Amino acid sequence: MEGRMCLPSSRPSLASDAPIGIFDSGIGGLTVAHAIAQAMPAERMLYFGDTAHMPYGDRSPELVRTYSVRIAEFLAAEGCKAIVIACNSASATAKAAVEACLPEDVPVIDVVAPVVQHLAHEGVKRVGVVGTRATIGSGIYGHSLREAQRANGLTGGRIEEWATPLLAPLIEEGWQSHELMLPVIQGYLEAAGWHAGKERHIEALVLGCTHYPLAEPAFRQVLGPEVDLIDGPSIVAAAVSAALRTRGMLAPADARQGQHEFMVSDLTDNFAQSAQRFFGEEVHLVPGGPWFQH
Amino acid sequence: MEGRMCLPSSRPSLASDAPIGIFDSGIGGLTVAHAIAQAMPAERMLYFGDTAHMPYGDRSPELVRTYSVRIAEFLAAEGCKAIVIACNSASATAKAAVEACLPEDVPVIDVVAPVVQHLAHEGVKRVGVVGTRATIGSGIYGHSLREAQRANGLTGGRIEEWATPLLAPLIEEGWQSHELMLPVIQGYLEAAGWHAGKERHIEALVLGCTHYPLAEPAFRQVLGPEVDLIDGPSIVAAAVSAALRTRGMLAPADARQGQHEFMVSDLTDNFAQSAQRFFGEEVHLVPGGPWFQH
Repeated sequence: MEGRMCLPSSRPSLASDAPIGIFDSGIGGLTVAHAIAQAMPAERMLYFGDTAHMPYGDRSPELVRTYSVRIAEFLAAEGCKAIVIACNSASATAKAAVEACLPEDVPVIDVVAPVVQHLAHEGVKRVGVVGTRATIGSGIYGHSLREAQRANGLTGGRIEEWATPLLAPLIEEGWQSHELMLPVIQGYLEAAGWHAGKERHIEALVLGCTHYPLAEPAFRQVLGPEVDLIDGPSIVAAAVSAALRTRGMLAPADARQGQHEFMVSDLTDNFAQSAQRFFGEEVHLVPGGPWFQH
Repeated sequence: MEGRMCLPSSRPSLASDAPIGIFDSGIGGLTVAHAIAQAMPAERMLYFGDTAHMPYGDRSPELVRTYSVRIAEFLAAEGCKAIVIACNSASATAKAAVEACLPEDVPVIDVVAPVVQHLAHEGVKRVGVVGTRATIGSGIYGHSLREAQRANGLTGGRIEEWATPLLAPLIEEGWQSHELMLPVIQGYLEAAGWHAGKERHIEALVLGCTHYPLAEPAFRQVLGPEVDLIDGPSIVAAAVSAALRTRGMLAPADARQGQHEFMVSDLTDNFAQSAQRFFGEEVHLVPGGPWFQH
């Protein structure tokens, strides 16, 4: 009601075969889209990557909110039955603004809350988080993890948040398995006080940027086998599934008729080529979205 | 005349004490602004960094043109007597569009043409160019260098253009002297067929991105002493000076009254802190420009 005023509430109810809307500042969110496609093969997705304005991780919170709200309104106007904020920076700063701008029957699933719930539920106490400047600067993981740990009666929890802004450009460049990934990751973690072998500083590391799952082997090599790497995309996909199930909005098992759609606000050869790496299979990007003028 | 229709031509002529307008996709253009300030201490500058839309180096040519024209119109409307495109990606793709949109008495100086003229004038034959995807993808350096070499009667010229998209993020992160800069630069050059010591592949390397001068020592270490590193900013500053002198628009030697102004379209702590590294002295960034709404 109040605060949810941007779109008219008189439109017809959403059908369960409506698409799931997913957005990210670029193509990193395709890792989340892929996990959703794997977990819910009957669902159709409308993906929007804001490649004209990426990376959100270096932007101010105000600007990330402005962009996110405009995209969410666009996806809702396209008839999406749910909105997935597949971007940690936008999840950290824009979730409330996105919720406030959508009709009440459109659930908003971000990529932070499901991971936090998962960690608290698993009783993980000592957690590290790596992410962009915007995500880490917001303190969202630390704040909500501490709250969830308290709610779950956990004491002695410790949360370390580390901004690692070079990792996304390195992965976008296709260097996730490059030998330079190791010293970059190690350099960031050691600068933050982490030392391999010295003590088991953290039990789990949250890869708090949708690009990072592609570099999981490099993180594994730096951190060793004792630190759990949290698989954000599959946890988020499960949360999307639960949100739709609760509302009776899951697509019928045989419902998938149309293809997924993948839109970007600025299409370059490089994005077209990189998209496949993030989605894990072929993706056909088309220019489109709220800023599209042609 | 034709094509120069965006701003009314009935405004009064520009005074020689009007500011020089300079823009870049972010704060890298401050290296050019600093060279202009050093070369012409009597001049006042109005700098605009489009931090809301950076990096231009990963954007499509169409989008870079759209942003550049809007900024140039803004700077001209603010009374600037000349416009400096202090961004290689915008110079490569948007110069004609920017010129077409400004009154005829406002000269436009980009960062590519002066460097090309310098190389042709010096008779340099074998040239390497490193830059962003947008700059290298445009082929602007190769095309205009070959043309200038022909015009200067040079034969046997060879121009190699190499996209090095990770270097700007590394330098923005303050890693220009980090030990990892060397393997990254070396990796890019070797992937392109360059080998240290094997043969003197190039005589000169153009640092075709306004960030790169900060990494000059790293380039020097990789390339050795025999390859000239082209100092773009000071060459561009000389071109700006010449363009103003030709038009009788140089500020009188004792003219400097106001301070330089440095605007950005999105102000974050990180940009505020990094700006000083690029300008070489203290810079006070303020939010402003054509997209500013407050």
